[in-house]
Amino acid sequence: MEIKDSNWYLKTLIKAGLFDYGPVKGTIVFKPYGYRIWEKIQKYVDGEFKKLSIANAYFPLFIPESFLKKEKQHLEGFSPEVAIVTFAGGEELEERLIVRPTSETIIYHFFSQWVKSYRDLPLLINQWSNVVRWEKRPFPFLRNTEFLWQEGHTAHTSHQEAVKFALKILEIYQKIYQEILGIYGYAGKKSKNEKFAGAKDTYTYEILLPDGKALQGCTSHDLGQNFSKAFEVKFQDQKGQVKYVWQTSFGITTRTIGALSWVHGDNRGLVFPPTVSPYQIVIVPIYSKEKNNKTVYNKINFYIERMKKIISDYEFIIDQSEHTPGYKFNEWDLKGVPLRIEIGKKEVEQEKLTIFRRDKQQRLMMTLEELENNLSFLLKEIQVNLYTKSKEFTEKNTRFVKSYEEFKKVIFVNKGFVKAFWCEQEKCEFKIKEETKATTRCLPLNSEKSSGRCIYCKQKAENIWLFAQSY
Amino acid sequence: MEIKDSNWYLKTLIKAGLFDYGPVKGTIVFKPYGYRIWEKIQKYVDGEFKKLSIANAYFPLFIPESFLKKEKQHLEGFSPEVAIVTFAGGEELEERLIVRPTSETIIYHFFSQWVKSYRDLPLLINQWSNVVRWEKRPFPFLRNTEFLWQEGHTAHTSHQEAVKFALKILEIYQKIYQEILGIYGYAGKKSKNEKFAGAKDTYTYEILLPDGKALQGCTSHDLGQNFSKAFEVKFQDQKGQVKYVWQTSFGITTRTIGALSWVHGDNRGLVFPPTVSPYQIVIVPIYSKEKNNKTVYNKINFYIERMKKIISDYEFIIDQSEHTPGYKFNEWDLKGVPLRIEIGKKEVEQEKLTIFRRDKQQRLMMTLEELENNLSFLLKEIQVNLYTKSKEFTEKNTRFVKSYEEFKKVIFVNKGFVKAFWCEQEKCEFKIKEETKATTRCLPLNSEKSSGRCIYCKQKAENIWLFAQSY
Repeated sequence: MEIKDSNWYLKTLIKAGLFDYGPVKGTIVFKPYGYRIWEKIQKYVDGEFKKLSIANAYFPLFIPESFLKKEKQHLEGFSPEVAIVTFAGGEELEERLIVRPTSETIIYHFFSQWVKSYRDLPLLINQWSNVVRWEKRPFPFLRNTEFLWQEGHTAHTSHQEAVKFALKILEIYQKIYQEILGIYGYAGKKSKNEKFAGAKDTYTYEILLPDGKALQGCTSHDLGQNFSKAFEVKFQDQKGQVKYVWQTSFGITTRTIGALSWVHGDNRGLVFPPTVSPYQIVIVPIYSKEKNNKTVYNKINFYIERMKKIISDYEFIIDQSEHTPGYKFNEWDLKGVPLRIEIGKKEVEQEKLTIFRRDKQQRLMMTLEELENNLSFLLKEIQVNLYTKSKEFTEKNTRFVKSYEEFKKVIFVNKGFVKAFWCEQEKCEFKIKEETKATTRCLPLNSEKSSGRCIYCKQKAENIWLFAQSY
Repeated sequence: MEIKDSNWYLKTLIKAGLFDYGPVKGTIVFKPYGYRIWEKIQKYVDGEFKKLSIANAYFPLFIPESFLKKEKQHLEGFSPEVAIVTFAGGEELEERLIVRPTSETIIYHFFSQWVKSYRDLPLLINQWSNVVRWEKRPFPFLRNTEFLWQEGHTAHTSHQEAVKFALKILEIYQKIYQEILGIYGYAGKKSKNEKFAGAKDTYTYEILLPDGKALQGCTSHDLGQNFSKAFEVKFQDQKGQVKYVWQTSFGITTRTIGALSWVHGDNRGLVFPPTVSPYQIVIVPIYSKEKNNKTVYNKINFYIERMKKIISDYEFIIDQSEHTPGYKFNEWDLKGVPLRIEIGKKEVEQEKLTIFRRDKQQRLMMTLEELENNLSFLLKEIQVNLYTKSKEFTEKNTRFVKSYEEFKKVIFVNKGFVKAFWCEQEKCEFKIKEETKATTRCLPLNSEKSSGRCIYCKQKAENIWLFAQSY
């Protein structure tokens, strides 16, 4: 494993200006540099959702406690971690209000009013919002007490259509992770024990963090008819029969910011893929000593003006601060901007710019014309390179084991993902978790059925599951 | 006054699908058709803010009660209307948590850590979020218990710079109201009694609703050093001296959706200006009876395909539902889409489309080519027409009065805005409010000083203020 442990993570993300700790335990401030990443992720996700005709809406933050009690598994799953409003407007409230940890209950209360006929289906709704879950062991971005997310909620006429939709969403999330965030991972189905409280099935994209622990990247749930029965969401089908709808819900959160930062970072700081970096390019003029040499000073500025036209399609920043070039280089290394253009006396004399590739820590000299011709390709190459590294790291740290001894050795010594036969009985899953802190992460999609023995109980097993310790 | 009273408002906005009442008193669901308007307003405001280099960030929802107590006026202003979390994670909390009614206190707690030197200034931050204020008499969109908004927060080296910034923001809000929402109003300064709790001065844009009551459209505050002193937000100036920063805060909310709907609506429903309408164009194919006449049916579809290319730069919707044309016309009248294109047998035979202008309830026939040439102009004309109507209505209902008798007559009979001399003493303002329910709305900007007598106490007065009953 790399040296990028949780200390590296916490120190680097604070220093780079992604967050600050909030006054209430487990809360954070999403500082502007970190929030820009979220805005980009939002834009991509929202664009993909709009293509599927999912409509945005906004539902109340406060959920009456009685709503949460309507679906038993859901209540059991969420009640230990909710925050509760008991006073408002100077008075004690008659009914306590739950600050939403997720909005299935309140949204389906409305679905039951909005859906009457098969003509109203599918109903495809999304909400961008904050949610609150009282975490016992909070961790910035990955496990915040309050986080930002989108939560999608849909209703369909058939189970088949709902499952297809849940998997379509998983595909979008996978695309976001792979093509935008540059993070390799495994798409799969959660075990019964690890699925969302109230879901029939939960689909996930599981990624590996540099410290060897797994992270659930997002979830897409097949809710079956659990909630439609609890909230009476019914429709009249084409034959006039009244039926319960089939539902899905799905979410991706600001934990993506933490994952992104941790996966690609290196010993000098953050390394962002161009598609999601707050800026793609930073220009560092080096004229601290040249201010007296007007000719050079003017030439540098002239180059910057010409450069601006070439890079106008990208988000760039020009660092005109009074710091030394060395300080600025360190600062932008830390902040992870993929391309840095350095321009000083040397560059002006050679009529070439110094281009610094953050991912390979590599300097290239090129003319303005070469920059213009190569810029788009260069940024694409950085994007691909980061994804490839993430894929190699994850695959290298995914080990198939045949015995429980081997399993424990990998979990405790190598860390990372373990692939192993499991009989799918909860008692084995529970014992493994108790003894190794490793949990089932998912049954990867499209994995072929084969035949083996459960690593724990040695009974017959049909599927190879992915295990890991996790956040 | 028009017949568009509060009953019209509530019925029309529900029927048009803008909102539903939430289960907790004073909360609403922003339904997709209403939320689309908010997304458009967000986009415009965010774009204007980015031009001023205001950076988005996100601060925690929960504010420790002790923070609110640091600025006295602020505490007094907000404590009657806050919601309070007392339980979380299964336990009673040691310190009660306020669900943010606004975020000055928590944001300036961080400003005090982020600002050290004049080099860190101006600090320009914005947050898009939900806030909670426990309203005694809630009213959908205009006075929700939970609403959505942006809240901007800045810190500057001088009072002059802060005031200039607050006024620049007011100018942006005024532009949003006039050019985007098509709503005329008065930009001005609030009285001491009506300003934001904790501000030195509050600037506002006051508009008139069709029932004759005023609405505060937005606010931009000169906070002076009230909060910087309470939260120790200090900087070292260029001479090395340590000083408190000068601050502003400002916000525009989802109440804009309610204002927009009410101001432009008519006896058939909503009428949206093109810039902010969820859709600019709706196409209603009329072929219910033509399904057996394949030639006409195909021709209609052929026209629609050609039309799609012409209107591809706009947001349009094609109503292919099974309802009758009459039903659809009523529905889209209600929903306020500015242009409707009707295409049936008659249109195909004449090789012309029927274009229905929602604002004037006027039908025009034009060829595809004429549509292409006139579309952009037509939409601009609708935008201008709605603004002009709003301006005329507001000006007609703004009356200068010379006596308190006249004042009361206007407030009770005519309603609308009243312009009158006021001595600027709180006791007169209070008496007027007590006796007429009218409050000072603002001292319009750029109003010239003149000389008169306070309509209440008849003492000398230098300024003509705007009064009205309000939401």
